[in-house]
Amino acid sequence: MLIDLTIKGFLDKTAGSDPVPGGGSISALNGSIAAALTEMVANLTIGRKKYAEVEDKMREVAGRMAEIRTVLANDIDKDSDAYDKVFAAFKLPKETDEEKAHRSNVIQETTKEAALVPMSVAENAAAIMDTIAYVAHNGNQNAVTDATVAMMAARTCVLGALLNVKINLSSIKDEAFVKELSDKADRLEKEAIAKEQELLTWIKTIL
Amino acid sequence: MLIDLTIKGFLDKTAGSDPVPGGGSISALNGSIAAALTEMVANLTIGRKKYAEVEDKMREVAGRMAEIRTVLANDIDKDSDAYDKVFAAFKLPKETDEEKAHRSNVIQETTKEAALVPMSVAENAAAIMDTIAYVAHNGNQNAVTDATVAMMAARTCVLGALLNVKINLSSIKDEAFVKELSDKADRLEKEAIAKEQELLTWIKTIL
Repeated sequence: MLIDLTIKGFLDKTAGSDPVPGGGSISALNGSIAAALTEMVANLTIGRKKYAEVEDKMREVAGRMAEIRTVLANDIDKDSDAYDKVFAAFKLPKETDEEKAHRSNVIQETTKEAALVPMSVAENAAAIMDTIAYVAHNGNQNAVTDATVAMMAARTCVLGALLNVKINLSSIKDEAFVKELSDKADRLEKEAIAKEQELLTWIKTIL
Repeated sequence: MLIDLTIKGFLDKTAGSDPVPGGGSISALNGSIAAALTEMVANLTIGRKKYAEVEDKMREVAGRMAEIRTVLANDIDKDSDAYDKVFAAFKLPKETDEEKAHRSNVIQETTKEAALVPMSVAENAAAIMDTIAYVAHNGNQNAVTDATVAMMAARTCVLGALLNVKINLSSIKDEAFVKELSDKADRLEKEAIAKEQELLTWIKTIL
Protein backbone atom coordinates (compact mmCIF):
# COMPACT_ATOMS: atom_id res chain seq x y z
CA MET A 1 0.00 0.00 0.00
CA LEU A 2 1.08 3.59 -0.70
CA ILE A 3 0.96 4.59 2.98
CA ASP A 4 3.50 1.87 3.75
CA LEU A 5 6.03 3.48 1.41
CA THR A 6 8.62 5.80 2.93
CA ILE A 7 8.12 9.52 2.33
CA LYS A 8 11.07 9.36 -0.05
CA GLY A 9 9.69 6.31 -1.84
CA PHE A 10 6.23 7.88 -2.12
CA LEU A 11 7.73 11.05 -3.63
CA ASP A 12 9.73 8.94 -6.12
CA LYS A 13 6.58 7.04 -7.10
CA THR A 14 4.57 10.26 -7.47
CA ALA A 15 7.25 11.78 -9.73
CA GLY A 16 7.35 8.73 -12.04
CA SER A 17 5.50 8.31 -15.31
CA ASP A 18 2.60 6.34 -13.80
CA PRO A 19 -0.48 8.62 -13.40
CA VAL A 20 -1.00 7.26 -9.86
CA PRO A 21 -0.38 8.34 -7.22
CA GLY A 22 -1.38 11.75 -8.58
CA GLY A 23 -3.33 14.80 -7.49
CA GLY A 24 -6.14 12.73 -5.98
CA SER A 25 -3.89 10.77 -3.63
CA ILE A 26 -1.93 13.93 -2.80
CA SER A 27 -5.19 15.64 -1.86
CA ALA A 28 -6.08 12.81 0.51
CA LEU A 29 -2.55 12.96 1.97
CA ASN A 30 -2.99 16.67 2.63
CA GLY A 31 -6.31 15.97 4.35
CA SER A 32 -4.63 13.42 6.58
CA ILE A 33 -1.80 15.90 7.26
CA ALA A 34 -4.37 18.55 8.23
CA ALA A 35 -5.94 16.18 10.74
CA ALA A 36 -2.49 15.15 12.07
CA LEU A 37 -1.36 18.75 12.64
CA THR A 38 -4.66 19.62 14.32
CA GLU A 39 -4.25 16.60 16.56
CA MET A 40 -0.70 17.77 17.41
CA VAL A 41 -1.91 21.25 18.37
CA ALA A 42 -4.60 19.67 20.59
CA ASN A 43 -1.93 17.40 22.15
CA LEU A 44 0.34 20.42 22.76
CA THR A 45 -2.57 22.12 24.56
CA ILE A 46 -3.65 19.23 26.79
CA GLY A 47 -2.02 19.26 30.25
CA ARG A 48 -1.00 22.95 30.19
CA LYS A 49 -2.32 24.95 33.13
CA LYS A 50 -2.85 28.01 30.93
CA TYR A 51 -5.27 26.05 28.75
CA ALA A 52 -7.05 24.05 31.47
CA GLU A 53 -10.39 25.52 30.44
CA VAL A 54 -10.29 23.92 26.98
CA GLU A 55 -8.65 20.65 28.04
CA ASP A 56 -11.75 18.47 27.74
CA LYS A 57 -12.59 19.91 24.36
CA MET A 58 -8.98 19.40 23.15
CA ARG A 59 -9.07 15.75 24.21
CA GLU A 60 -12.21 15.29 22.18
CA VAL A 61 -10.57 17.07 19.20
CA ALA A 62 -7.44 14.88 19.41
CA GLY A 63 -9.53 11.71 19.43
CA ARG A 64 -11.68 12.79 16.49
CA MET A 65 -8.69 13.97 14.44
CA ALA A 66 -6.95 10.60 14.97
CA GLU A 67 -9.97 8.88 13.41
CA ILE A 68 -10.25 11.25 10.44
CA ARG A 69 -6.46 11.12 9.93
CA THR A 70 -6.75 7.34 9.45
CA VAL A 71 -9.76 7.58 7.13
CA LEU A 72 -8.01 10.14 4.91
CA ALA A 73 -4.71 8.22 4.97
CA ASN A 74 -6.56 5.16 3.67
CA ASP A 75 -8.10 7.35 0.96
CA ILE A 76 -4.58 7.89 -0.45
CA ASP A 77 -4.75 4.30 -1.69
CA LYS A 78 -8.49 4.33 -2.36
CA ASP A 79 -8.13 7.22 -4.79
CA SER A 80 -5.34 5.54 -6.75
CA ASP A 81 -7.26 2.23 -6.79
CA ALA A 82 -10.39 3.97 -8.14
CA TYR A 83 -8.33 5.47 -10.95
CA ASP A 84 -6.80 2.09 -11.79
CA LYS A 85 -10.29 0.58 -12.10
CA VAL A 86 -11.40 3.21 -14.64
CA PHE A 87 -8.19 2.61 -16.55
CA ALA A 88 -8.84 -1.16 -16.57
CA ALA A 89 -12.43 -0.59 -17.75
CA PHE A 90 -11.16 1.26 -20.83
CA LYS A 91 -9.09 -1.81 -21.71
CA LEU A 92 -12.12 -4.15 -21.81
CA PRO A 93 -12.82 -5.80 -25.21
CA LYS A 94 -15.08 -3.87 -27.60
CA GLU A 95 -15.53 -6.18 -30.57
CA THR A 96 -19.17 -7.27 -30.29
CA ASP A 97 -22.17 -5.08 -29.46
CA GLU A 98 -22.49 -6.97 -26.20
CA GLU A 99 -18.89 -6.27 -25.30
CA LYS A 100 -19.30 -2.60 -26.21
CA ALA A 101 -22.38 -2.25 -24.01
CA HIS A 102 -20.69 -4.04 -21.10
CA ARG A 103 -17.53 -1.95 -21.46
CA SER A 104 -19.53 1.27 -21.56
CA ASN A 105 -21.44 0.27 -18.41
CA VAL A 106 -18.29 -0.63 -16.52
CA ILE A 107 -16.65 2.66 -17.57
CA GLN A 108 -19.67 4.58 -16.26
CA GLU A 109 -19.77 2.68 -12.96
CA THR A 110 -16.02 2.90 -12.27
CA THR A 111 -15.99 6.59 -13.20
CA LYS A 112 -18.84 7.23 -10.76
CA GLU A 113 -16.78 5.52 -8.06
CA ALA A 114 -13.75 7.61 -9.09
CA ALA A 115 -15.89 10.72 -8.49
CA LEU A 116 -17.37 9.48 -5.21
CA VAL A 117 -13.99 8.68 -3.60
CA PRO A 118 -12.58 12.25 -3.92
CA MET A 119 -16.01 13.66 -2.98
CA SER A 120 -15.79 11.78 0.29
CA VAL A 121 -12.21 13.05 0.74
CA ALA A 122 -13.35 16.65 0.13
CA GLU A 123 -16.29 16.27 2.54
CA ASN A 124 -14.10 14.85 5.30
CA ALA A 125 -11.49 17.60 4.95
CA ALA A 126 -14.10 20.37 4.73
CA ALA A 127 -15.75 18.96 7.87
CA ILE A 128 -12.63 19.51 10.01
CA MET A 129 -12.00 23.13 8.98
CA ASP A 130 -14.08 24.57 11.84
CA THR A 131 -12.12 22.40 14.27
CA ILE A 132 -8.84 23.65 12.81
CA ALA A 133 -10.01 27.25 13.31
CA TYR A 134 -11.01 26.34 16.87
CA VAL A 135 -7.56 24.96 17.80
CA ALA A 136 -5.85 27.92 16.08
CA HIS A 137 -7.82 30.38 18.21
CA ASN A 138 -8.06 28.41 21.47
CA GLY A 139 -5.16 25.97 21.48
CA ASN A 140 -1.51 26.42 22.49
CA GLN A 141 -0.55 29.71 20.86
CA ASN A 142 3.04 28.51 20.34
CA ALA A 143 1.54 26.17 17.74
CA VAL A 144 -0.66 28.72 15.99
CA THR A 145 1.36 28.50 12.76
CA ASP A 146 0.98 24.71 12.79
CA ALA A 147 -2.80 25.10 12.97
CA THR A 148 -2.66 27.56 10.09
CA VAL A 149 -0.61 25.14 7.97
CA ALA A 150 -3.24 22.50 8.84
CA MET A 151 -5.90 24.84 7.43
CA MET A 152 -3.95 25.35 4.20
CA ALA A 153 -3.44 21.60 3.85
CA ALA A 154 -7.19 21.09 4.36
CA ARG A 155 -7.95 23.66 1.65
CA THR A 156 -5.51 21.97 -0.76
CA CYS A 157 -7.22 18.69 0.05
CA VAL A 158 -10.76 19.98 -0.55
CA LEU A 159 -9.98 21.93 -3.75
CA GLY A 160 -7.68 19.21 -5.11
CA ALA A 161 -10.16 16.42 -4.46
CA LEU A 162 -12.95 18.48 -6.06
CA LEU A 163 -10.87 18.88 -9.24
CA ASN A 164 -10.83 15.09 -9.41
CA VAL A 165 -14.58 14.96 -8.80
CA LYS A 166 -15.20 17.43 -11.62
CA ILE A 167 -12.90 15.83 -14.18
CA ASN A 168 -14.70 12.52 -13.62
CA LEU A 169 -18.16 14.11 -13.73
CA SER A 170 -17.35 15.42 -17.21
CA SER A 171 -17.64 11.88 -18.62
CA ILE A 172 -20.61 10.61 -16.58
CA LYS A 173 -23.94 10.36 -18.39
CA ASP A 174 -26.25 10.05 -15.36
CA GLU A 175 -27.46 13.65 -15.19
CA ALA A 176 -29.00 13.44 -11.72
CA PHE A 177 -25.75 12.04 -10.34
CA VAL A 178 -23.74 14.79 -12.06
CA LYS A 179 -26.08 17.52 -10.80
CA GLU A 180 -26.00 16.28 -7.21
CA LEU A 181 -22.20 16.05 -7.06
CA SER A 182 -21.68 19.31 -8.98
CA ASP A 183 -23.85 21.25 -6.57
CA LYS A 184 -22.14 19.69 -3.57
CA ALA A 185 -18.71 20.44 -5.09
CA ASP A 186 -19.59 24.10 -5.63
CA ARG A 187 -20.75 24.44 -2.04
CA LEU A 188 -17.68 22.73 -0.55
CA GLU A 189 -15.34 24.78 -2.72
CA LYS A 190 -16.82 28.08 -1.54
CA GLU A 191 -16.77 26.94 2.08
CA ALA A 192 -13.15 25.78 1.98
CA ILE A 193 -11.91 28.98 0.34
CA ALA A 194 -13.79 31.20 2.80
CA LYS A 195 -12.76 29.30 5.94
CA GLU A 196 -9.07 29.24 5.01
CA GLN A 197 -9.16 32.92 4.03
CA GLU A 198 -10.68 33.84 7.38
CA LEU A 199 -7.84 32.16 9.30
CA LEU A 200 -5.13 33.60 7.03
CA THR A 201 -6.58 37.08 7.58
CA TRP A 202 -6.57 36.56 11.34
CA ILE A 203 -3.04 35.16 11.54
CA LYS A 204 -1.76 38.27 9.75
CA THR A 205 -3.12 40.39 12.60
CA ILE A 206 -1.05 38.51 15.18
CA LEU A 207 2.19 37.61 13.33
CA MET B 1 15.49 10.70 9.17
CA LEU B 2 11.88 11.76 8.74
CA ILE B 3 11.86 11.02 5.00
CA ASP B 4 12.75 7.41 5.78
CA LEU B 5 9.58 6.99 7.83
CA THR B 6 6.56 5.46 6.12
CA ILE B 7 3.74 7.84 5.23
CA LYS B 8 1.74 6.26 8.02
CA GLY B 9 4.63 6.57 10.48
CA PHE B 10 5.24 10.19 9.52
CA LEU B 11 1.57 11.05 10.04
CA ASP B 12 1.65 9.34 13.46
CA LYS B 13 4.75 11.31 14.43
CA THR B 14 3.22 14.58 13.21
CA ALA B 15 0.06 13.97 15.25
CA GLY B 16 1.97 13.27 18.48
CA SER B 17 2.73 15.76 21.25
CA ASP B 18 6.24 16.60 20.01
CA PRO B 19 6.21 20.00 18.21
CA VAL B 20 8.31 18.49 15.37
CA PRO B 21 7.60 17.57 12.69
CA GLY B 22 5.16 20.48 12.52
CA GLY B 23 4.03 23.09 10.04
CA GLY B 24 7.57 23.82 8.85
CA SER B 25 8.34 20.25 7.85
CA ILE B 26 4.87 19.86 6.35
CA SER B 27 5.50 22.96 4.24
CA ALA B 28 8.76 21.47 2.92
CA LEU B 29 6.93 18.19 2.23
CA ASN B 30 4.33 20.07 0.20
CA GLY B 31 7.09 21.76 -1.77
CA SER B 32 8.64 18.41 -2.56
CA ILE B 33 5.19 17.07 -3.51
CA ALA B 34 4.69 20.04 -5.85
CA ALA B 35 7.99 19.27 -7.60
CA ALA B 36 7.13 15.54 -7.76
CA LEU B 37 3.70 16.13 -9.36
CA THR B 38 5.20 18.59 -11.86
CA GLU B 39 7.84 16.00 -12.72
CA MET B 40 5.07 13.42 -13.23
CA VAL B 41 3.13 15.69 -15.60
CA ALA B 42 6.35 16.29 -17.57
CA ASN B 43 6.97 12.53 -17.65
CA LEU B 44 3.40 11.90 -18.85
CA THR B 45 4.03 14.40 -21.67
CA ILE B 46 7.40 13.08 -22.87
CA GLY B 47 7.12 10.54 -25.71
CA ARG B 48 3.57 11.49 -26.78
CA LYS B 49 3.29 12.43 -30.46
CA LYS B 50 0.70 15.10 -29.66
CA TYR B 51 3.21 16.92 -27.44
CA ALA B 52 6.36 16.41 -29.55
CA GLU B 53 6.86 20.16 -29.79
CA VAL B 54 7.40 20.56 -26.05
CA GLU B 55 9.31 17.30 -25.51
CA ASP B 56 12.76 18.86 -25.04
CA LYS B 57 11.42 21.44 -22.65
CA MET B 58 9.55 18.75 -20.67
CA ARG B 59 12.74 16.69 -20.34
CA GLU B 60 14.46 19.74 -18.92
CA VAL B 61 11.53 20.34 -16.54
CA ALA B 62 11.57 16.71 -15.33
CA GLY B 63 15.30 16.88 -14.60
CA ARG B 64 15.08 20.17 -12.74
CA MET B 65 12.04 19.08 -10.72
CA ALA B 66 13.86 15.90 -9.63
CA GLU B 67 16.63 18.06 -8.18
CA ILE B 68 14.30 20.48 -6.38
CA ARG B 69 12.19 17.59 -5.12
CA THR B 70 15.26 16.18 -3.38
CA VAL B 71 16.32 19.54 -1.94
CA LEU B 72 12.85 20.16 -0.51
CA ALA B 73 12.53 16.58 0.78
CA ASN B 74 15.78 17.07 2.70
CA ASP B 75 14.36 20.33 4.08
CA ILE B 76 11.66 18.27 5.86
CA ASP B 77 14.40 17.15 8.25
CA LYS B 78 16.36 20.41 8.12
CA ASP B 79 13.34 22.37 9.37
CA SER B 80 12.74 20.03 12.30
CA ASP B 81 16.48 20.03 13.14
CA ALA B 82 16.57 23.84 13.13
CA TYR B 83 13.65 23.91 15.56
CA ASP B 84 15.36 21.38 17.84
CA LYS B 85 18.46 23.57 17.98
CA VAL B 86 16.45 26.61 19.13
CA PHE B 87 14.77 24.43 21.73
CA ALA B 88 18.17 23.19 22.96
CA ALA B 89 19.49 26.77 23.14
CA PHE B 90 16.68 27.74 25.53
CA LYS B 91 17.83 24.93 27.83
CA LEU B 92 21.38 26.29 28.18
CA PRO B 93 22.43 27.31 31.73
CA LYS B 94 21.68 30.89 32.77
CA GLU B 95 23.22 31.24 36.23
CA THR B 96 26.20 33.55 35.63
CA ASP B 97 26.28 36.70 33.50
CA GLU B 98 28.62 34.90 31.13
CA GLU B 99 26.20 32.00 30.76
CA LYS B 100 23.31 34.40 30.24
CA ALA B 101 25.18 36.24 27.47
CA HIS B 102 26.24 32.99 25.82
CA ARG B 103 22.71 31.57 26.00
CA SER B 104 21.24 34.74 24.54
CA ASN B 105 23.73 34.67 21.65
CA VAL B 106 23.05 31.02 20.88
CA ILE B 107 19.29 31.64 20.97
CA GLN B 108 19.70 34.52 18.51
CA GLU B 109 21.92 32.50 16.16
CA THR B 110 19.78 29.35 16.17
CA THR B 111 16.62 31.42 15.71
CA LYS B 112 18.19 33.13 12.69
CA GLU B 113 18.94 29.69 11.25
CA ALA B 114 15.34 28.61 12.04
CA ALA B 115 14.16 31.59 9.95
CA LEU B 116 16.65 31.00 7.11
CA VAL B 117 15.70 27.35 6.60
CA PRO B 118 11.98 28.02 5.89
CA MET B 119 12.96 31.11 3.85
CA SER B 120 15.00 28.86 1.58
CA VAL B 121 12.04 26.42 1.41
CA ALA B 122 9.68 29.26 0.44
CA GLU B 123 12.10 30.57 -2.19
CA ASN B 124 12.56 27.15 -3.77
CA ALA B 125 8.82 26.49 -3.92
CA ALA B 126 8.02 29.98 -5.24
CA ALA B 127 10.69 29.51 -7.91
CA ILE B 128 8.91 26.49 -9.43
CA MET B 129 5.45 28.06 -9.69
CA ASP B 130 6.05 29.38 -13.22
CA THR B 131 7.16 25.91 -14.28
CA ILE B 132 4.02 24.40 -12.75
CA ALA B 133 1.89 26.86 -14.72
CA TYR B 134 3.88 25.95 -17.85
CA VAL B 135 3.23 22.19 -17.52
CA ALA B 136 -0.44 22.85 -16.69
CA HIS B 137 -0.89 24.82 -19.90
CA ASN B 138 1.46 22.90 -22.21
CA GLY B 139 1.79 19.41 -20.75
CA ASN B 140 -0.43 16.32 -21.14
CA GLN B 141 -3.93 17.71 -20.63
CA ASN B 142 -5.08 14.44 -19.03
CA ALA B 143 -2.88 15.48 -16.11
CA VAL B 144 -4.04 19.09 -15.86
CA THR B 145 -5.63 18.52 -12.45
CA ASP B 146 -2.36 17.02 -11.18
CA ALA B 147 -0.51 20.18 -12.23
CA THR B 148 -3.14 22.26 -10.45
CA VAL B 149 -2.77 20.26 -7.25
CA ALA B 150 1.01 20.79 -7.61
CA MET B 151 0.35 24.54 -7.69
CA MET B 152 -1.80 24.39 -4.55
CA ALA B 153 0.86 22.31 -2.78
CA ALA B 154 3.48 24.90 -3.80
CA ARG B 155 1.31 27.72 -2.40
CA THR B 156 0.82 25.82 0.88
CA CYS B 157 4.59 25.35 0.99
CA VAL B 158 5.41 29.01 0.38
CA LEU B 159 2.79 30.46 2.75
CA GLY B 160 3.41 27.82 5.43
CA ALA B 161 7.18 28.26 5.34
CA LEU B 162 6.76 32.04 5.51
CA LEU B 163 4.66 31.72 8.67
CA ASN B 164 7.64 29.95 10.21
CA VAL B 165 9.98 32.68 8.95
CA LYS B 166 7.78 35.36 10.52
CA ILE B 167 7.28 33.68 13.88
CA ASN B 168 11.07 33.34 14.21
CA LEU B 169 11.70 36.92 13.07
CA SER B 170 9.52 38.16 15.93
CA SER B 171 12.24 37.20 18.43
CA ILE B 172 15.34 38.25 16.45
CA LYS B 173 17.04 41.48 17.54
CA ASP B 174 19.20 42.10 14.44
CA GLU B 175 17.01 44.72 12.74
CA ALA B 176 18.74 44.60 9.36
CA PHE B 177 18.29 40.81 9.24
CA VAL B 178 14.62 41.14 10.20
CA LYS B 179 13.97 43.85 7.62
CA GLU B 180 15.63 41.91 4.81
CA LEU B 181 13.72 38.70 5.49
CA SER B 182 10.45 40.52 6.16
CA ASP B 183 10.57 42.30 2.84
CA LYS B 184 11.45 39.11 1.00
CA ALA B 185 8.63 37.26 2.80
CA ASP B 186 6.07 39.90 1.81
CA ARG B 187 7.15 39.70 -1.83
CA LEU B 188 7.11 35.89 -1.98
CA GLU B 189 3.72 35.77 -0.27
CA LYS B 190 2.12 38.09 -2.83
CA GLU B 191 3.73 36.20 -5.72
CA ALA B 192 2.61 32.78 -4.49
CA ILE B 193 -0.97 33.89 -3.91
CA ALA B 194 -1.22 35.57 -7.32
CA LYS B 195 0.34 32.70 -9.29
CA GLU B 196 -1.87 30.05 -7.71
CA GLN B 197 -4.97 32.23 -8.15
CA GLU B 198 -4.20 32.67 -11.83
CA LEU B 199 -4.06 28.91 -12.43
CA LEU B 200 -7.18 28.23 -10.33
CA THR B 201 -9.05 30.84 -12.36
CA TRP B 202 -7.89 29.23 -15.62
CA ILE B 203 -8.72 25.67 -14.60
CA LYS B 204 -12.30 26.77 -13.84
CA THR B 205 -12.68 27.81 -17.47
CA ILE B 206 -11.81 24.32 -18.74
CA LEU B 207 -13.28 21.98 -16.08
